[in-house]
Amino acid sequence: MPDIRKLGEQGVIDLFKSHLDNKRIVKAIGDDCAAIEISDNTLLLWTTDMLIEGVHFERHFGTPFQLGCKSLSVNLSDIAAMGGEPLACLINLSIPADLSQQWLSEFRDGFIQTSQKYDCPVIGGDSCGSRKTISISVTVLGEAPEGRILQRDGAKDGDDIWLSAIPGVSALGLGILTNQSDMTSEEARSAIEKHLNPQPCLALGRTLASKKLATACIDTSDGLVIDLGHICEASRLGAVLVERDVPLPSIPADRSDDPLHLALHGGEDYSLLFTAPATNRKELRKLGGLYLIGRIDDSVEGLILKRHGGKKESLFPQGFSHF
Amino acid sequence: MPDIRKLGEQGVIDLFKSHLDNKRIVKAIGDDCAAIEISDNTLLLWTTDMLIEGVHFERHFGTPFQLGCKSLSVNLSDIAAMGGEPLACLINLSIPADLSQQWLSEFRDGFIQTSQKYDCPVIGGDSCGSRKTISISVTVLGEAPEGRILQRDGAKDGDDIWLSAIPGVSALGLGILTNQSDMTSEEARSAIEKHLNPQPCLALGRTLASKKLATACIDTSDGLVIDLGHICEASRLGAVLVERDVPLPSIPADRSDDPLHLALHGGEDYSLLFTAPATNRKELRKLGGLYLIGRIDDSVEGLILKRHGGKKESLFPQGFSHF
Repeated sequence: MPDIRKLGEQGVIDLFKSHLDNKRIVKAIGDDCAAIEISDNTLLLWTTDMLIEGVHFERHFGTPFQLGCKSLSVNLSDIAAMGGEPLACLINLSIPADLSQQWLSEFRDGFIQTSQKYDCPVIGGDSCGSRKTISISVTVLGEAPEGRILQRDGAKDGDDIWLSAIPGVSALGLGILTNQSDMTSEEARSAIEKHLNPQPCLALGRTLASKKLATACIDTSDGLVIDLGHICEASRLGAVLVERDVPLPSIPADRSDDPLHLALHGGEDYSLLFTAPATNRKELRKLGGLYLIGRIDDSVEGLILKRHGGKKESLFPQGFSHF
Repeated sequence: MPDIRKLGEQGVIDLFKSHLDNKRIVKAIGDDCAAIEISDNTLLLWTTDMLIEGVHFERHFGTPFQLGCKSLSVNLSDIAAMGGEPLACLINLSIPADLSQQWLSEFRDGFIQTSQKYDCPVIGGDSCGSRKTISISVTVLGEAPEGRILQRDGAKDGDDIWLSAIPGVSALGLGILTNQSDMTSEEARSAIEKHLNPQPCLALGRTLASKKLATACIDTSDGLVIDLGHICEASRLGAVLVERDVPLPSIPADRSDDPLHLALHGGEDYSLLFTAPATNRKELRKLGGLYLIGRIDDSVEGLILKRHGGKKESLFPQGFSHF
């Protein structure tokens, strides 16, 4: 039998899908969070994410404090993508015995500062040794009013596609860290900051959900094309991205990255990507900082990029693959 | 600054304790599960545990199916220790890309079978690659009626100490697997089974909680002395174990393990250790399979073992240390 490279990341978790007969489980595998009905008008949102050394991070790239912040922020980003409010979190740490208390203490400070900033207290966890590498696994509970959550599957034909930040900046930061390029320019510093210290869009998620401004939403962790693909697949529709309207990362002078490639395929931005009817444009523009980058289109198959000049190209997933 | 060996497993998680001002958080760090009030009469129980290759398991010790079962069972055991019912779970898997689909598929079968057996559906998770080793991190939500949960801190002076299984059997099984001793004897086979496929005591936990039969409870994951120490510390009382009454594991003829040492210090039994007033003895005996092994005693400091013949010895933690 083949190895798991054939399955891919989603395929591995999809293996665990099984029959559900609990009507209180509103969302299971297949969205940013699972959702459980806990009272007539409240849903519990539940998400978990790992950060594994050598896979998601290298210890020397950033400070332990930044890693502590990011470990919680990437989970909070999933709560944001569903329009929820954080309730509490648990942390699992597998760490080598020769790790310094200094490291752990700084990591803790970052984690706790983030938990306080977003009102998501640490209420439990587990710790154990490891052979060599640090593994961090965090799980967050959040809440949202029933009927006011954002999901991936609600996009409608003709909806606008919006993005809450310039895509590809985090991937640019990772490239600079990996290649040890010049880190002194303004562009380099802000890209590295974006990579090491992403901010969950909780306020935006709550606004979109509570005012019912968006029809579908996801956080951009795998890259614009992959994540928009998730919305399109769940909503069974195609989409057209307009090159002219996709904001591009500023590339430092010493680097030769293709900004469009980064924008389309770079991961770990943790911004919100959402769809909304054109009638909401005015209200969405008032929120500020949002980019209208394309349109949901029932008549196209998959994802299309409309280039400068009008030529149309199909887009295919090129993000990071774990297997 | 020193490395984390100075802190120990509990010390690492204790670092993350911080001020809580959410009154709905009924239990935070320091019990088997965290507990959150979700309605006037229901508490949400929440727990997480890791299984790391090379730390908690070796791939060749058991089957992937058994590992799948155990990954969920050890988490369900924490729900049992609080007297709750499972609601749902999430699974995080960090696995090397060259792992076979066959392995993953068997692991999944064990996990799903356990989730169905205990009515705890898998509703989400995360997967990613790893350099070499398999890391499994599971989180379970459960529920219990408010005022009917079991906690570590409720033991009273004079309470009986009960245990739901012969202690040290899992550690004996681990010893047999590690030393590749003879595995054909009945004692060896049942010890190995106990180690590779522990069963969460959910029915017992619910009975103890719903009938208010126990004053304090914990599941035995670190070893009898350490886990009883947790109850004593949380309840601010000492305890006397009676050697005559502590049931001992049956040691296979080819091995020279000290059965008392295994019983006192062997971990991973996942039985329930609980305290109850002597007035509940009759009802507890009716449940069957329970061992009355000692007594909570305000007049002693820490834990004492009353040996055959009456001599008293202090007991100190000797379980497995992660750091």
